[in-house]
Amino acid sequence: MKKTAFILLGLMCMTTIATAQEKPNTAEIKEDFVPSVMNQPGQEYPMVNSQGYARFRIHAPEAQSVIVSLGLGGQGGTVLAKDADGVWTGTTAGPMDEGFHYYRMTIDGAVVNDPGTKNYYGSVRWESGIEIPAHDQDFYAMKDVPHGQVSQILYPSKETGQTHRAFVYLPPQYDGKKKFPVLYLQHGWGEDETAWSNQGHANLIMDNLIAEGKCKPFIIVMAYGMTNEVKWGGLASFDFTKFERVVANDLIPYIDSHFKTIAKKEMRAMAGLSMGGMETKHITLARPELFNYYGIFSGGLYSPEEIGDPSKVKLVFLSCGSKEYPDAILKATETLKAAGYNAVSYISEGTAHEFQAWRRSLKEMAPMLFR
Amino acid sequence: MKKTAFILLGLMCMTTIATAQEKPNTAEIKEDFVPSVMNQPGQEYPMVNSQGYARFRIHAPEAQSVIVSLGLGGQGGTVLAKDADGVWTGTTAGPMDEGFHYYRMTIDGAVVNDPGTKNYYGSVRWESGIEIPAHDQDFYAMKDVPHGQVSQILYPSKETGQTHRAFVYLPPQYDGKKKFPVLYLQHGWGEDETAWSNQGHANLIMDNLIAEGKCKPFIIVMAYGMTNEVKWGGLASFDFTKFERVVANDLIPYIDSHFKTIAKKEMRAMAGLSMGGMETKHITLARPELFNYYGIFSGGLYSPEEIGDPSKVKLVFLSCGSKEYPDAILKATETLKAAGYNAVSYISEGTAHEFQAWRRSLKEMAPMLFR
Repeated sequence: MKKTAFILLGLMCMTTIATAQEKPNTAEIKEDFVPSVMNQPGQEYPMVNSQGYARFRIHAPEAQSVIVSLGLGGQGGTVLAKDADGVWTGTTAGPMDEGFHYYRMTIDGAVVNDPGTKNYYGSVRWESGIEIPAHDQDFYAMKDVPHGQVSQILYPSKETGQTHRAFVYLPPQYDGKKKFPVLYLQHGWGEDETAWSNQGHANLIMDNLIAEGKCKPFIIVMAYGMTNEVKWGGLASFDFTKFERVVANDLIPYIDSHFKTIAKKEMRAMAGLSMGGMETKHITLARPELFNYYGIFSGGLYSPEEIGDPSKVKLVFLSCGSKEYPDAILKATETLKAAGYNAVSYISEGTAHEFQAWRRSLKEMAPMLFR
Repeated sequence: MKKTAFILLGLMCMTTIATAQEKPNTAEIKEDFVPSVMNQPGQEYPMVNSQGYARFRIHAPEAQSVIVSLGLGGQGGTVLAKDADGVWTGTTAGPMDEGFHYYRMTIDGAVVNDPGTKNYYGSVRWESGIEIPAHDQDFYAMKDVPHGQVSQILYPSKETGQTHRAFVYLPPQYDGKKKFPVLYLQHGWGEDETAWSNQGHANLIMDNLIAEGKCKPFIIVMAYGMTNEVKWGGLASFDFTKFERVVANDLIPYIDSHFKTIAKKEMRAMAGLSMGGMETKHITLARPELFNYYGIFSGGLYSPEEIGDPSKVKLVFLSCGSKEYPDAILKATETLKAAGYNAVSYISEGTAHEFQAWRRSLKEMAPMLFR
């Protein structure tokens, strides 16, 4: 498990540098910038163009330097330049990958958020967010279809002695009478229970899939997975057994007693991104009696030796971005298939260790669940 | 209505100046500072002490000036001083009122949020928030009691042609079978549908009241009330009829068809804070067939002439902070009582035009509803 953690941290850093290393070529940049959809109401900046460039702006008349840093590590970045009115502006050196990116601003050495954007929890802090329009953004668009609810619950944990917040997606068909299967869906390292519905658009992805008849309606539970509250950098020493006990002893019983669920292994799935994938692997292997569908998005692999009897699991879903470790995903999936498992792989084209890969992974996995 | 709007804006500005005008007396300040409960996970600053002083800190090694501004207008403020390590620190000139306050930081002229705190939507932007511990904070504390849900819904509006987000508090007793009354509860100018559950703690207030048997369980609907999307400064020209049509034609029908409600006037209430109180007044008077309980928190008054027949309404609840216009509240309530209305006033001691007055107003009004 420790080895996997180091691989993941390495991938995160590579991703960051990749977004900033390309050289600028201003002659190429199309001046069709529009406000990012993640902006605060009425805010013009940051803007994005049709090629994937981002342009940042802030009024800071007395500042000496303003730098925008993208990605988890915050290395590199876009250096903004000041005009005569004290307004700083800068455009990324190259186009960015499609989808959502965290970032922050450094103003004279102070690391703060861009006041133009809403905040998204990542890197163990509320970060600025920007959205590069994706060619396939329609699958998480807000449409005129029946919408489910995202319900905030507060559940007590015997394991931690605290009350924890979680979010529960209820499909439009949820009426308090009919019972539904449940997917437990985990965020990544440094994120929290808000990630999948805020930047992940899990609710809109499901609303759209269900409206198109591509997916059975089911409940999604999104809980906080960093239950032993380690700080940034402590992933290698993270104790997954604590969250395993929270899920098995506190969360699942609460969900099954407060919502209309089909409370059995056959109608329960678990998936997660990055560290949430590592949690999924640990928990599904430790508690085979609880889950029938396993999904890891950019968070590692399963081997036949780890799972054991193929009849234990109905689906093993493995995915990552094409800029991560697609060969390892494909190879692991082939190995699982050859050993008799129903294993499916998915590679998100043109993305790295970021949310666009995970939105797509959810969209790909959801239709295969509870069939 | 325009006159009321100007009075409210005047009160907001007075509040701001009041928090900053007292002279510092460092000999008096008790060094028992603890992190504000509104801080981001793991963040030590901002801190608050037992007297109501706030202390701010940020690392900004190259900055020339850092100022913290409290209140809606952002006037005045606490000037921070830099130490040899580039860390800026400052303490408010005087104690602040109990409860929640919005604020922002100005770093070399750039208006940003304090990276130490979570963000709260106010002043038409996501702001930093700080909580001065209140003597009565127990009524909105997270306790080991049954907790209701706060459910995010997306409802279509024929009036605006858009899909809008709202939040729905469901009491712990909500089970999809039994039907409940509904309170429509509005935020103030520059806030949004997140305010009442984030900084208002409406859900915890209700969970606690219900657990103590002081209040009937009911549903609360918290919708976005600035439906004609005017900018800051435009309150005087705000058109309340648009939101009236959203509430009457879009929101109430959606709530009554998607939740187990008792869908009749006798089991429906409306209340709001500041601009939300002005909306409540407009909508309850324009649609007397919809609501049986009216509440205005720091948002104006009702007169017998405006309401008409006292049998139209079961309760008129008027409140504000003691630093606002308590005499006008008390006088209006007496006038209503003399004219045969069941009118109740509440004055929040020691608070101005801020959320502590509104948390307390909800706590006072809720037990009187649907009896």
